[in-house]
Amino acid sequence: MSEIQSQYVKKILRGVGTAPVECGEAFAPSNIALCKYWGKRDPVLNLPVNSSLSVSLGKLGTRTAVRFADRNRIELNGKEVSPEDTFAVRILEFLQLFFPMIGNVHFDVRTANNIPTAAGLASSASGFAALVLALDNLMGWGLDRKQLSMLARLGSGSAARSVYDGFVCWHAGTRKDGRDSFAEPISSDWKEFRIGILEISKDWKPVSSRAGMKRTVETSELYRSWPRQAADDLEMLRLAIADKDFPMLGKTAENNALAMHATMLSAWPPLIYWQPETIAQIHRVHQVRSEGLDVYLTIDAGPNLKLLFTEETEKLVKSFFPGLQVICPID
Amino acid sequence: MSEIQSQYVKKILRGVGTAPVECGEAFAPSNIALCKYWGKRDPVLNLPVNSSLSVSLGKLGTRTAVRFADRNRIELNGKEVSPEDTFAVRILEFLQLFFPMIGNVHFDVRTANNIPTAAGLASSASGFAALVLALDNLMGWGLDRKQLSMLARLGSGSAARSVYDGFVCWHAGTRKDGRDSFAEPISSDWKEFRIGILEISKDWKPVSSRAGMKRTVETSELYRSWPRQAADDLEMLRLAIADKDFPMLGKTAENNALAMHATMLSAWPPLIYWQPETIAQIHRVHQVRSEGLDVYLTIDAGPNLKLLFTEETEKLVKSFFPGLQVICPID
Repeated sequence: MSEIQSQYVKKILRGVGTAPVECGEAFAPSNIALCKYWGKRDPVLNLPVNSSLSVSLGKLGTRTAVRFADRNRIELNGKEVSPEDTFAVRILEFLQLFFPMIGNVHFDVRTANNIPTAAGLASSASGFAALVLALDNLMGWGLDRKQLSMLARLGSGSAARSVYDGFVCWHAGTRKDGRDSFAEPISSDWKEFRIGILEISKDWKPVSSRAGMKRTVETSELYRSWPRQAADDLEMLRLAIADKDFPMLGKTAENNALAMHATMLSAWPPLIYWQPETIAQIHRVHQVRSEGLDVYLTIDAGPNLKLLFTEETEKLVKSFFPGLQVICPID
Repeated sequence: MSEIQSQYVKKILRGVGTAPVECGEAFAPSNIALCKYWGKRDPVLNLPVNSSLSVSLGKLGTRTAVRFADRNRIELNGKEVSPEDTFAVRILEFLQLFFPMIGNVHFDVRTANNIPTAAGLASSASGFAALVLALDNLMGWGLDRKQLSMLARLGSGSAARSVYDGFVCWHAGTRKDGRDSFAEPISSDWKEFRIGILEISKDWKPVSSRAGMKRTVETSELYRSWPRQAADDLEMLRLAIADKDFPMLGKTAENNALAMHATMLSAWPPLIYWQPETIAQIHRVHQVRSEGLDVYLTIDAGPNLKLLFTEETEKLVKSFFPGLQVICPID
């Protein structure tokens, strides 16, 4: 917990109401970036190098309940986690940011994901978003979504996007104080849009995405071209969403994801989240696409593929990828 | 065959002797780039965007015999190839460059590789180098290696490097006429240096490296950062060879190869030469290196890994990678 972070939180909370309830509860969806967040311009305030664009996963995400308690108690998916565990430490340090004046405050946090934790399915995004929403509920602050987005960002960058449903743009911003780096929803009624989750591994990743992007920014020469690519891709995605132009959306999202992995590959030491099965499935997607099926892929900082397609091809895509978990993000 | 190419060849051949023999014969080694050639600034004269640095593979390469004949006859590894086959067409078009005044000249070319053809083991490099050397022998031109390098380059860029043994630098050059784009040997007595070939697939590649680099240059945003990376890597490799600093050589070569594959990954459509087994073996190299073994990898435009190590660790490396074909490039 840093002084800069505490001051930042204090400014956002200034003037909000407090009508506390006994237990604050909230749900936040996971989100999958179509234009990835990769690289920080400020690691303390989690300010990104580039703006990003995501789609939230509807009912897949994190439900969190938080209350004050006599001792810190963190529960993940029904099991108590040791307070020394990285997972618990990150949550407790984050909560301390909101109560800098109180020396000895303790929390009971119960959080449950219905997505695999840390397998590149952005559970830290939904996790910190749900925590901030639950805290707002607990304290009765009544903050608006933009403010909640700026607070969730401190816990995990991509959490800034998980305070909304549907398509979301997280503006990188340019200010040093981080007050212009927040997410906004992109309105859309693209009900035919589909995402399919192809699970390759539930294993925890060897390198956190936080450490991974740091290494990439510091050591990859090719990363220098990333900000321009991301800026171009984001504009293309906005147009594709506005026009419901699925091939343009799919192509841009896949190219963006593979370019992000390319920056990792060219880091030192090389950062490769992919497993052999990841390559096999990428080739499979390319094979069926070459046969005329309009399906694209995206991959986060993990081994799992997410497929992008539309209602029209859903049956065919499922037949080529058995076990695919299909989500309708826009309803 | 273009007029520009014919004029280029004519200028190099100007003033050379001709004491023809009945059959020209030569051997040229394959080479493995430690700083890759990736991207052309001129596709007609095969002028590269970046200078590259390789090590030749000693006795692994191509042996070629060429003679004039009544009809074109191309033999590869003991089997006659149809004159319509891409392989034969490339050879015959290349040979025509040297005899622009003669309308109807035919050749009998017998070529044999002791390396898998087109599995990313640079058989076109040794192939065109051997062909130029055999032609020089056939015609009695007596060209020097620098001139032979400039001619071999027209057949396949990396062939410019295969006219030498040991470490070789191919200067990209800046001239439009291509006369400053040739290879030169880098003298070294680094007898302890080893390369290990880990064969994953003998299959022909789906996309030629010629087409692959064209697609990358035209569509990859990250490729814009490649020329600077290659220039930096080449200087590091020169220093590493001069100092026999193996970790510096290994790190630079591996980072360079993965950066090249990163530019392909970020091309559109994405260009992925890797197979699932490629990823498995990359992880294996990283695993044994994390345990303290000084072994690095490089990968060309294909699925196969080449391992870099030294005599000191040869036994251990072999024990971790059974079936490894070990080469002593410098003797």
